[in-house]
Amino acid sequence: MAKLSRNFGSVWVCFMIVSAVLSVGVDGLRSNLIRLATERGNGGGEDVGRKSIADPHLIVSLPGAPKFPFSMRSGYITVDEKAGRALFFWFVEADVQDPASAPLTLWLNGGPGCSSVGGGMLSELGPFYPTRDGAHLLPNAHAWNKVSNMLFLESPAGVGFSYSNTTTDYKTGDKRTAQDSYAFLLRFFEQYPLYSSSKFYISGESYAGHYVPQLADTILEGNKVGSNKKINLQGMLVGNAWTDANVDNFGAIFFWWTHALVSDSTFKGVVKNCNFSSVGPLRSEADDLCDKYVDIANNELGNINIYEIYADICVSAQAQAETRHFGKQLSRTRFGGLSTRPLMKDSYDPCVDDEVEVYLNRPEVQEALHANTTHLPWRWTDCSEIVDYSFDDLLSSVLPVYHNLLESNIKILVFSGDVDAIVPVTGTRTWLNLLPLNITEAWRPWTVDNQVGGYVTKYDKLTFSTVRGAGHMVPYTQPARALHLFQSFINNTPL
Amino acid sequence: MAKLSRNFGSVWVCFMIVSAVLSVGVDGLRSNLIRLATERGNGGGEDVGRKSIADPHLIVSLPGAPKFPFSMRSGYITVDEKAGRALFFWFVEADVQDPASAPLTLWLNGGPGCSSVGGGMLSELGPFYPTRDGAHLLPNAHAWNKVSNMLFLESPAGVGFSYSNTTTDYKTGDKRTAQDSYAFLLRFFEQYPLYSSSKFYISGESYAGHYVPQLADTILEGNKVGSNKKINLQGMLVGNAWTDANVDNFGAIFFWWTHALVSDSTFKGVVKNCNFSSVGPLRSEADDLCDKYVDIANNELGNINIYEIYADICVSAQAQAETRHFGKQLSRTRFGGLSTRPLMKDSYDPCVDDEVEVYLNRPEVQEALHANTTHLPWRWTDCSEIVDYSFDDLLSSVLPVYHNLLESNIKILVFSGDVDAIVPVTGTRTWLNLLPLNITEAWRPWTVDNQVGGYVTKYDKLTFSTVRGAGHMVPYTQPARALHLFQSFINNTPL
Repeated sequence: MAKLSRNFGSVWVCFMIVSAVLSVGVDGLRSNLIRLATERGNGGGEDVGRKSIADPHLIVSLPGAPKFPFSMRSGYITVDEKAGRALFFWFVEADVQDPASAPLTLWLNGGPGCSSVGGGMLSELGPFYPTRDGAHLLPNAHAWNKVSNMLFLESPAGVGFSYSNTTTDYKTGDKRTAQDSYAFLLRFFEQYPLYSSSKFYISGESYAGHYVPQLADTILEGNKVGSNKKINLQGMLVGNAWTDANVDNFGAIFFWWTHALVSDSTFKGVVKNCNFSSVGPLRSEADDLCDKYVDIANNELGNINIYEIYADICVSAQAQAETRHFGKQLSRTRFGGLSTRPLMKDSYDPCVDDEVEVYLNRPEVQEALHANTTHLPWRWTDCSEIVDYSFDDLLSSVLPVYHNLLESNIKILVFSGDVDAIVPVTGTRTWLNLLPLNITEAWRPWTVDNQVGGYVTKYDKLTFSTVRGAGHMVPYTQPARALHLFQSFINNTPL
Repeated sequence: MAKLSRNFGSVWVCFMIVSAVLSVGVDGLRSNLIRLATERGNGGGEDVGRKSIADPHLIVSLPGAPKFPFSMRSGYITVDEKAGRALFFWFVEADVQDPASAPLTLWLNGGPGCSSVGGGMLSELGPFYPTRDGAHLLPNAHAWNKVSNMLFLESPAGVGFSYSNTTTDYKTGDKRTAQDSYAFLLRFFEQYPLYSSSKFYISGESYAGHYVPQLADTILEGNKVGSNKKINLQGMLVGNAWTDANVDNFGAIFFWWTHALVSDSTFKGVVKNCNFSSVGPLRSEADDLCDKYVDIANNELGNINIYEIYADICVSAQAQAETRHFGKQLSRTRFGGLSTRPLMKDSYDPCVDDEVEVYLNRPEVQEALHANTTHLPWRWTDCSEIVDYSFDDLLSSVLPVYHNLLESNIKILVFSGDVDAIVPVTGTRTWLNLLPLNITEAWRPWTVDNQVGGYVTKYDKLTFSTVRGAGHMVPYTQPARALHLFQSFINNTPL
C-alpha cells in the first residue's frame, strides 16, 4: 500500500514555547489503445457491463466476486508507443442510476512504486475487499463509487501490471510520472468520451502527495495549450501526503515521541543528528549518528503497524493459532461455558495486502482483468521492486507546486488520518503553516454516525481535515468517515 | 469512573529544541464491625462463600450474576465510631486453588469522589461486567483476581455507599482520605486475619495518583510505630495518575495539540494565558483569558470520549437507532443480501457507567451486597455529588511523597494508557523526569498475544510502562494488556 519507510537527516529545528509566544519553525521546511465506440451510452442500464462485450476493457465477470450492478473496465493504455510504455487501469463506474452525471475521480497510491489497484481499489475504497484466503471478494459498504466514478491507475510503468518495453524506463521520477499520467488521461478521455466532460478530481495518499499536485499542475498547464485536450479538473484531495522531507521527517519523529512510541533520549538524538531535508522518510542510509539514532528509534518502536499505531500487525497463521491457544489459557475461567465480554478488536483485516497479492496473481483473475497480457517476468506485488525512483524527487518539496495551485480555481482538500506514524498529521499541519493561507473557518469537529469523525479547518483556498482514528490508509481504517469526507468535498456539502 | 475534567492555568513553559539539546522544562477505620472468625480457612474449598453463612459480609448470591467459583465479601467497616464514618468495600478472592497464598491488592478509583466499586470492580478489572440493560453480569476473562485477591474500597466517606453520620465529614481532603483508608485496612486485616500477612499491593488510577502514594506512605509510617499493626506492603501501581497539576495540565494541552484535537492558536492561547499550577484539570473556573482559551479548546475537541480519544461516546438509544437507520441508508448497496465487510468498531461498551448505576441501585443488589443498610438519602452514583474535596489538595504535587517512597523498599509501577487525554502520558513522562531516577533498562516494547502491548522503561526504583491503545481506564479499554502488565508486576516476571 505504501512504501514510505526510509530515512531521517539532521535539521536545524527551533521549537520554542516561551510564555506569551509559541512558534513552530522547521527550516527548509497510450498504446495498444484499441479505439472503440462501445461506451455506456451504447449499452445502457445497469447491465451495460455484461452487454457491451465489444469493449475489450470491459470486465464481464470477476472471479470470486459477487455480481456487480455497475460497469467496470480494466486493461492497458499505452502512453509512449516508441518506448512501449503501457499503464494498467481499473475503472469502476459510479453505483448510481446515471453514472455519466456523476463526477470522475482518479485515485493514486504512493510508494513511490505502489499500486493503486492493490491499494486503493482492492483494500481501501474500491467496491470490494478480498476474503482472508484471497479467493473471493466481498462488497464494501463504503466504496467511493457510491459518490463518483473511480479510476485506479498503476503508475509509473513498472508498478503492478504497468510496464515498459524499454527497461531503462524503470529508472524514473516525478516529472515522467506526471507526464505519463497526463498522457494516460488524455487517451482515456479520448477512448471514453462519455466521461471527458465530467467533473474530474484527483485523489491519493502517501507519496501521491507528490503525484497528485504535480499531475493537477500538469493538467492546468496542458489545459492552457490545446483546446481539444482540456480536462475538466475541479479539484484534488491528498491524504497523509508526503510533501516536504524536512517537515514530514520532523513531523514523524515528533509524532513518535509525543505518542509515547520512543524514549526522550532517542527523540533528542534523532533531532540533534539528522538532517531531515537530505534523507528519505524514517530510515537513514548513511553510517552516521543519524543512522544510529534512527535505528534505535526503530528498535524502540518494535513490531507495530507504523501505518496505524493502534492496529494489529499481520501475524502468521501459526502465530495466530498459538495466540488463540495462549489466549484460551490466559482467559481460562471457572465460570463454565458462559460467554464472556468480547474484547476490543480491530475488525479490519491486518493481512489484506497479502490477500490482494494472492488474488491478483491468479491467472483467471488476470485474464478477467485483461492484465499481464504480455506475460511480465515478475509476479504482481503491491509495491514494485523494479522501479528505481529518483531519490532527489523524494526529497524535493512540493510546496512550490501548491503555490501554483493556490493561484488556480481548483478545490483542494488536505486530509490526515491521525494515527498514522509514517507521514503523520504533525508534519502536515506544519507544512500547511508554510503556505500563504488565511483561515476562514476555525478548527471544529465534524460528525458522522453520532461520533466525531475528525476536525476541519477551512482556509480561503484549501480545506484541511483530520480523520479521527484513521491510519495512513484512511479509507481502509475508517471507511465510513472517509466516505463522508469524500462525499462532502465532491458535493460541496457541509462536513 | 473519573471526574478529572476541570481547569487550566498559566505556566511558565519553555520548550526548546535547538540543534544539540532538547530540554523540556515545566516551571513551572471501628465499626459496626462484627467480629467473626468465619474465614476461608473455616469454610474451605471453592464453595466457602456459600457455606460460610456466619460472615455477614459474605455475598451468598448476586442478582443476575453467574455462579462464581470464588468467595466475595462486601459491606461496611467503620473507620471512626464517634463521627460514624463507615467505608464500603467489596472483596473478591483470587480465582485460584489457594487464595490465601495469593497476594492481596487494593484498588482505588479517583475523582476525587468516584467509586472503586462502580469503576474498578464493575467496569474495569473485576470478575464481572454489566450487560447493556444493567440487569445481568457477565464474566470478565481478564479479571485481576486471576492473579491476586482484590479489594475495592469506596473512599472517602460520601463516595458510593460509604457515608458518615457527621455530614461535615463530606468536606474532606487527601490527609483524611489516607488516614481513613489506613484505618480501614487495619480493621480489615483484623477481621480477616487470613490475609493479614499476605503480600499487599495498592493500585489505582486517575486521582488515585494522590490516594495510592499517600496511602503507601501512611502505611510505611504506621509500620514504624505499632508492631501489631504492620501491613505487609510490597508495592504500589498507579495508572494515568494525577500527580502534579502544573505538569499534568501542560501534559494535557500538549497531548491535545500533538494528537490533532485542537488548533495551533488555541494551544498557544492556553499555554500563554493559563497558570497550570493554580487550576484543576482541563477547565478554568476564573473569568479570564485562560478560561476563554480553555473554553475554546473544549469546543474544538467536540463531543469525544476524553478518556479514550479514539473510542465511541455513549449515545442515547434513540440516537443509536437513528444512526442504524442512517447507516443503513448510507451503506445501501445494490449487491443484494450479501454480507459486507465489518467495520472497525470498539466492542467494549461506551455506556458501561450508566449500566453500573442501574445495577447498583437495584434494592435486591444492595441487599445482596450488604450495602446502603442505613438508607442513604441519595442514589448510588459513580462519582459523588456530596463530597466537597479540597481544591488545594487537588493542586498539590505528590512528587515529594515519591521522594519518600523511593527511599523505601517497595516496588513502584507507574503506567499510562496512551490514548487518554485527561491525564495523558505526556504529563506522566514529564513528572517522571523530575524524580531522582536512573534508567537501568532502556525504553523497549513488550508484547502480549503477538502484538506490542506497550513500552517499558525501568529505573533503579521504579518501572514505567505505557499500555498501547489504552485510555484513562486502562483495564477497561485494553483488558488483556492490563492483566499482563499487572501479572508481570505482581509476580516479578519479565514484561
